[in-house]
Amino acid sequence: MLVRGEPVVRGVLEATLEELALVGYGALRIEDVAARAGVNKTTIYRRWPMKQELVDAALHSVTVARIIQPDTGSLRGDLLEIGRHMATLMSSAEGQALRRILIAEERNPEFMAIAGLLRESMDALPLPVIEAARTRGELAPGLESVLPFQVLAASVQHRLFMERRGIDEGYLEQLVDLILLGALAPDKRK
Amino acid sequence: MLVRGEPVVRGVLEATLEELALVGYGALRIEDVAARAGVNKTTIYRRWPMKQELVDAALHSVTVARIIQPDTGSLRGDLLEIGRHMATLMSSAEGQALRRILIAEERNPEFMAIAGLLRESMDALPLPVIEAARTRGELAPGLESVLPFQVLAASVQHRLFMERRGIDEGYLEQLVDLILLGALAPDKRK
Repeated sequence: MLVRGEPVVRGVLEATLEELALVGYGALRIEDVAARAGVNKTTIYRRWPMKQELVDAALHSVTVARIIQPDTGSLRGDLLEIGRHMATLMSSAEGQALRRILIAEERNPEFMAIAGLLRESMDALPLPVIEAARTRGELAPGLESVLPFQVLAASVQHRLFMERRGIDEGYLEQLVDLILLGALAPDKRK
Repeated sequence: MLVRGEPVVRGVLEATLEELALVGYGALRIEDVAARAGVNKTTIYRRWPMKQELVDAALHSVTVARIIQPDTGSLRGDLLEIGRHMATLMSSAEGQALRRILIAEERNPEFMAIAGLLRESMDALPLPVIEAARTRGELAPGLESVLPFQVLAASVQHRLFMERRGIDEGYLEQLVDLILLGALAPDKRK
């Protein structure tokens, strides 16, 4: 798996994800992560004193740390960029491993608390894009402004993993245009 | 699990889903389904000569056979009805078992072929609702008309299983209104 940052940090976080995918959260041991990364376990404990912190950092390294902040000048352009980028991330080996880990651990309360923190960080990511769109006067009044981004993420994920269909530019444009313009005929809006 | 239809058919399809959840598609044996359902295995073979047909019927019994066809007189009303119903189905014990089976078998090509047929049947379900909306002149011209239903299903599923948040009436209305009206301010549409 590919994680950015200093080489040692990167090696440890990659090793954490690999161990997590292999043995699960409950059985994950810092010793095994250290052995896999080829570092002393004190190197890990110094930076991440608790297993939760290490796993949290590993999950962030392949999600939050990878997400781009587009600035195309329009909400449509930004949504398309985000959609393309999410499709690439989710289709990658890390994206698929992460999905399997999240599903495998969905009944583990300690892991789900970490996943909840990850979700909060993810929810905050589109805020600059939302703010820019609001400044340009692009957003419909009264709109729950995180919703378009959640719908985009849900639809990309559903298409890739449940429908098992690819995401091409044509699909992405239809999806973004539905999110922006809605399904109703213009004369049926009030 | 609760399956509708004649008692014997119902018992066999319920037993099929239970075995599927327990041993997986590859290891599923008609003999074990028969034993679980308390019927002779020839009773099963007579109706479903192949394992694929039995599994296909079992998957349909908790999905396609359960989906309602709303007729509220408006696309908004119909989407809300479908959303409520999907949230109930997906949250049920059968819905959760089905999701786990689909995920567990996602790398089994024979099972995925059956899941592909199921998806085609699911995609056809909103056609009467789409047709009614088109007749009332409610749909935007040029819209890929299955897309709003896929986005609704994806969003409900994502919220329940990935975000682990409930679906209440307030969320459902916001979601349906986004799908119908879009996120753009009225003066930004061209």
